[in-house]
Amino acid sequence: MSLVLDPAAQDLLFREAHTARTFTDEPVTEEQIRAIYDLVKFGPTAFNQTPLRVVLVRSAEARERLVEHMSDSNKDKTSTAPLVAILAADNEFHEELPHLLPTFPAAKDVLFAERPVRERDAGMNAALQAAYFIVGVRAAGLAAGPMSGFDHAGVQKEFLDGDHTPLMIVNIGKPGEDAWRPRAPRLAFDDVVTTV
Amino acid sequence: MSLVLDPAAQDLLFREAHTARTFTDEPVTEEQIRAIYDLVKFGPTAFNQTPLRVVLVRSAEARERLVEHMSDSNKDKTSTAPLVAILAADNEFHEELPHLLPTFPAAKDVLFAERPVRERDAGMNAALQAAYFIVGVRAAGLAAGPMSGFDHAGVQKEFLDGDHTPLMIVNIGKPGEDAWRPRAPRLAFDDVVTTV
Repeated sequence: MSLVLDPAAQDLLFREAHTARTFTDEPVTEEQIRAIYDLVKFGPTAFNQTPLRVVLVRSAEARERLVEHMSDSNKDKTSTAPLVAILAADNEFHEELPHLLPTFPAAKDVLFAERPVRERDAGMNAALQAAYFIVGVRAAGLAAGPMSGFDHAGVQKEFLDGDHTPLMIVNIGKPGEDAWRPRAPRLAFDDVVTTV
Repeated sequence: MSLVLDPAAQDLLFREAHTARTFTDEPVTEEQIRAIYDLVKFGPTAFNQTPLRVVLVRSAEARERLVEHMSDSNKDKTSTAPLVAILAADNEFHEELPHLLPTFPAAKDVLFAERPVRERDAGMNAALQAAYFIVGVRAAGLAAGPMSGFDHAGVQKEFLDGDHTPLMIVNIGKPGEDAWRPRAPRLAFDDVVTTV
């Protein structure tokens, strides 16, 4: 056993977890989302940027607006999931750095004065946090259904602003009937990892 | 308790885990890295792209070449960590899609014929996998020290090729003395999450 993580936890987070396409009606509570955030907020980002921002789509009216922007193959899932979250990168994350990075409060101006640098770093580090968030959803005993198939400019205009770039949209809930396809293949270790 | 993940696993992966700056001499074995990969390979990516590629820097000669490209503040850590991994995005990941995405083998040509689209998707999805990898390192009872401070063009030229973009470099090992700083602050839930 090379892993010290409990095998049940391995199954919950990775081995038995799948991207869900159907969900039961059981609601996802505010308490669950807060517990997920309070766990995954500790995941590392460069210079503690933590640029991920989340919009929870809870009202029927907002859900309807969102579904309009989804790819056809994602409309049904997004209509019926108990909760849908828009994950976005805050390109103005540097404003928080004097608070978030007490060991180097000048990072805001020294490293991140330029918007293109911020956009690159925000995208990369919010993606790390999106992955932690997916792991957190699974840690709550829920299934995640992350999707990149939507009109990104439309979702940005409808739910965000010019400083926030949408990364992905995640359906969240208990898996329903026929919730996933058989596991797709993964690359072999030797196709991914080389040693020098 | 809103999370079903065992509290010890929560601690191991997030609450008690820190980015390490020092390490013991204990080696990180090939078996450990294989176990980490065999766990985190199941983490989801868009269209099962799985574009992450990993270069393990094991020889003294390669380590020396790598340290040359690290930022000054990262040179010592990278010199002394038991193992260092270069995480990169494969911008030609689409070549594997006919195998990786049996439900939509034409995705290779229909969605990913253009290099700029591939580069954007490879960066985003390899970042998700980099986060799963960090979680996996922790699942093996090891500490990760992810770093973005290095000469990216230099590392690409020295260890990769024009089709592989370096994302981050990760020091891996058992934490050593004074391995981390006190936890930096995190944003409050209400500063990150909004509901519509």
